[in-house]
Amino acid sequence: MKRRSVMVLGGDRRNLELARLLINDGEDVKISYVHGLNFEDIDLIIGPLPLSSDKKTLNAPFHPEEIEVDALLEKMRGKTLIAGVIDEELILKGSIYGITMVDYFKREELQVLNAVPTAEGAIKIAIENMPITLHGSNALVLGFGRIGKALSNMLYGMGANVHVAARKHEDIAWIKNLRYIPVCFDELDTVLQGMDVLFNTVPQLVLDDNRLIHLNREALVIDLASQPGGVDFGAAEKLGIKTIHALGIPGKTAPLTAARIIKETIYNIIRERGL
Amino acid sequence: MKRRSVMVLGGDRRNLELARLLINDGEDVKISYVHGLNFEDIDLIIGPLPLSSDKKTLNAPFHPEEIEVDALLEKMRGKTLIAGVIDEELILKGSIYGITMVDYFKREELQVLNAVPTAEGAIKIAIENMPITLHGSNALVLGFGRIGKALSNMLYGMGANVHVAARKHEDIAWIKNLRYIPVCFDELDTVLQGMDVLFNTVPQLVLDDNRLIHLNREALVIDLASQPGGVDFGAAEKLGIKTIHALGIPGKTAPLTAARIIKETIYNIIRERGL
Amino acid sequence: MKRRSVMVLGGDRRNLELARLLINDGEDVKISYVHGLNFEDIDLIIGPLPLSSDKKTLNAPFHPEEIEVDALLEKMRGKTLIAGVIDEELILKGSIYGITMVDYFKREELQVLNAVPTAEGAIKIAIENMPITLHGSNALVLGFGRIGKALSNMLYGMGANVHVAARKHEDIAWIKNLRYIPVCFDELDTVLQGMDVLFNTVPQLVLDDNRLIHLNREALVIDLASQPGGVDFGAAEKLGIKTIHALGIPGKTAPLTAARIIKETIYNIIRERGL
Amino acid sequence: MKRRSVMVLGGDRRNLELARLLINDGEDVKISYVHGLNFEDIDLIIGPLPLSSDKKTLNAPFHPEEIEVDALLEKMRGKTLIAGVIDEELILKGSIYGITMVDYFKREELQVLNAVPTAEGAIKIAIENMPITLHGSNALVLGFGRIGKALSNMLYGMGANVHVAARKHEDIAWIKNLRYIPVCFDELDTVLQGMDVLFNTVPQLVLDDNRLIHLNREALVIDLASQPGGVDFGAAEKLGIKTIHALGIPGKTAPLTAARIIKETIYNIIRERGL
Repeated sequence: MKRRSVMVLGGDRRNLELARLLINDGEDVKISYVHGLNFEDIDLIIGPLPLSSDKKTLNAPFHPEEIEVDALLEKMRGKTLIAGVIDEELILKGSIYGITMVDYFKREELQVLNAVPTAEGAIKIAIENMPITLHGSNALVLGFGRIGKALSNMLYGMGANVHVAARKHEDIAWIKNLRYIPVCFDELDTVLQGMDVLFNTVPQLVLDDNRLIHLNREALVIDLASQPGGVDFGAAEKLGIKTIHALGIPGKTAPLTAARIIKETIYNIIRERGL
Repeated sequence: MKRRSVMVLGGDRRNLELARLLINDGEDVKISYVHGLNFEDIDLIIGPLPLSSDKKTLNAPFHPEEIEVDALLEKMRGKTLIAGVIDEELILKGSIYGITMVDYFKREELQVLNAVPTAEGAIKIAIENMPITLHGSNALVLGFGRIGKALSNMLYGMGANVHVAARKHEDIAWIKNLRYIPVCFDELDTVLQGMDVLFNTVPQLVLDDNRLIHLNREALVIDLASQPGGVDFGAAEKLGIKTIHALGIPGKTAPLTAARIIKETIYNIIRERGL
Repeated sequence: MKRRSVMVLGGDRRNLELARLLINDGEDVKISYVHGLNFEDIDLIIGPLPLSSDKKTLNAPFHPEEIEVDALLEKMRGKTLIAGVIDEELILKGSIYGITMVDYFKREELQVLNAVPTAEGAIKIAIENMPITLHGSNALVLGFGRIGKALSNMLYGMGANVHVAARKHEDIAWIKNLRYIPVCFDELDTVLQGMDVLFNTVPQLVLDDNRLIHLNREALVIDLASQPGGVDFGAAEKLGIKTIHALGIPGKTAPLTAARIIKETIYNIIRERGL
Repeated sequence: MKRRSVMVLGGDRRNLELARLLINDGEDVKISYVHGLNFEDIDLIIGPLPLSSDKKTLNAPFHPEEIEVDALLEKMRGKTLIAGVIDEELILKGSIYGITMVDYFKREELQVLNAVPTAEGAIKIAIENMPITLHGSNALVLGFGRIGKALSNMLYGMGANVHVAARKHEDIAWIKNLRYIPVCFDELDTVLQGMDVLFNTVPQLVLDDNRLIHLNREALVIDLASQPGGVDFGAAEKLGIKTIHALGIPGKTAPLTAARIIKETIYNIIRERGL
């Protein structure tokens, strides 16, 4: 990647950190806030996460004015743009201008690495909102995907009694291997009563009103699943159960770590594609 | 302890939780806020932590008016009072009225158990105030006493690179056994530069200006040592180093766990003394 | 599975333990060694692991004489046979007699659970054959599949410096998340020199003569990959490097655990198929 | 220690490893097997562990003939001798010749560091002799001193259900903090039945016939306490309980690690005494 001219385009604090990290690595970096939107001598453009929130304007909170994506793409003709979460529509538009667009947010290694700051943020929220310590508490993690795995590992490291609910025999086997307490989804109701804190990672309505009634009223429910989440928040409120829907944790809890993860993923993309 | 009449006297939320826990255990419990200050049929009095902040009035934030300790002690004539942090002066006064006073805060098992909520609170503070995750960060724990041990264990469980500074060969040996990175106090300066977060547990000025200049400006310093702490806060501020002096964590972070620890310690005292 | 008549057929100590476990669970169990080969009133037949080593005779070391598989299958007409490692040829033959054959060894959960006794056996072999402790040693695990994951976890728990070599970015990300030291296969040579013990789990010749020359002569190499393994044993011998090819560990190290894992897997099969 | 002439005297494989380590560190080392017993230009003598088994002859299995300690001491007049386990009688004799004798085996850091190879050897013995995996088994550690602490930590790392029996409230508190299951000695009998493996570290008869009858007949008992140990071996044999009395593990399981620990302790002694 050395001796390449890189433009860091738009974005929040993470992109600023990213620019700093690239400069530390010896890259020749221009920042759109500072150097403007001239892509002439630029070899590689690194956009924000997400590229656009409304499919029309660039996600660029630090820029003084709105930037139309259409006009921007025209300026990037023939370039390579790596960004996080790029709408299909924009990819299509980009292809008209001969722009190679790569979405780093779809990379498995980024999602895996991001599971750690997510887990850490979730643990902070739990400590903050529980009257007891996580250590020695009964914690239930719903789902054993990337976040479920990283979170269980950290909760175990904190000394919680880690219960993990999963469906597949294979997952149950791993849960046993790792010394967590396996919970099959069909026997979920019977264990809910004893839990002090629940972390949902499943992007489906797993904690509906039929399940919530089995919960201890003093339990805390933290939902980490993306919108609309996996908890019936209304039903929970009626039952007096405290819920927190925590989204976009990596960028909030650990923006510098989030930037490092993006950088590493971009390097992998560059290496693989010979950019 | 069964069939005993217990008065829970004064105190903050922890004492309310304590009363609730004792009731759950089947004890006959009276609460001073509710039942008043009549000790006639009371077998055992459980006071607050601390008993008094000014040696004159009872530590009783939920009572509508101030309670003079002198007058109170007179009413307790011949009884047994278990409380946390009792001033020597008050113990003396109590003995005049034939009151047996036991300070649970001096019990080693309480201090050991309290190290866990302290460590957990410290971890929450660190996550909250660092731009990177604890996981993968360079963390330095100064001192390997109760809090140092519990904190190192949890930081390790969170995935930090745990460095521990200690003086005694014996402690260094344990630090190695537990897979932390040992740091001798005389070589402290050389490792300070690489640290992302420091936790001081030593009640002496270990992080004075001569040491602080070796620190990375972006490092976070959390001081867990009781007043005046072990950090030159003024010098740190001048250097632009962020410091947090965190005291009384168990009662703040995990009041219910704190109450449970007090209860368990009181039970040990009762069993040992045949109360 | 209750009130079912189960025949445990052939096999080694694991099958005896399995029979004992099933009896403890309240099953009506017959053992072929004791009750002979009459399948008339039998609902379910549980065979050995493997069913046959030569495709001709049953794997039944405790039976006084050889049992021809062909003749045996004829006797089982219309029954269900669950066994481990069943040759395709035998499955075909079985289908002629209307026998439903299920190979439990192909089940992912069994393979995952078996990774634990395999890892534990590998650790025993390492302790036995190293002049230093695993604790504090440099250990390299080649491959991050089931055994690689379980073994890394245990080595970490023992206090080794766990290095894991993998190819996929995704695996490297998990290796970092779990606090092991990631090694890319292309930079393997440079880390080999510093390793005290290597565990190969990759069923390919990863440790050929070109790689072995980079190894410390005092390192120990334990190959856990099935025949022919992943190590050039001849080259290692010439270089004076100690190698151990360890196969079939679960049945050897922990026959009772191995039997429990088989039992659990058979229960899953029964439940899924409504047997 | 640089530029000093060191004689490594007698001993087993550990002393040879020790000599090798000292040479690697740049010391000028003579080995008594090779260079004979001339101490003239020697600054420091490092003896074996123990110095003598019979108080009369040097512990020197690799020397062709017996070496009388009395005659030897006379030759060492005025020198400094560091060895492990030196009999009081010999220290007295040495003082007559003006020999400064230091027993490194009495150093706390050596005992602490040695607890790790001891724990690792004990784990190897357990894996070897149990029909189930340590992972998921019920393990009971009797005593929470150095070996009890190191062993519990490693058993936990292997995934065992670690129970620890201790007497002091303080120890019980630490056992809880570290997420082991605490067992008070007076309720020991009730938990014995469920244990798969016991590790005794207490140098008193804790597992007498009255306790052993509560044990599961298939449990394994490993006694790590020095002679005569803490188990009634005769009673165990009558009950059909398998026992193993494992002594001197560090030198047997990990001679090189044992030598490194001795070296480190000797360096501490040298530094402290300004030798």
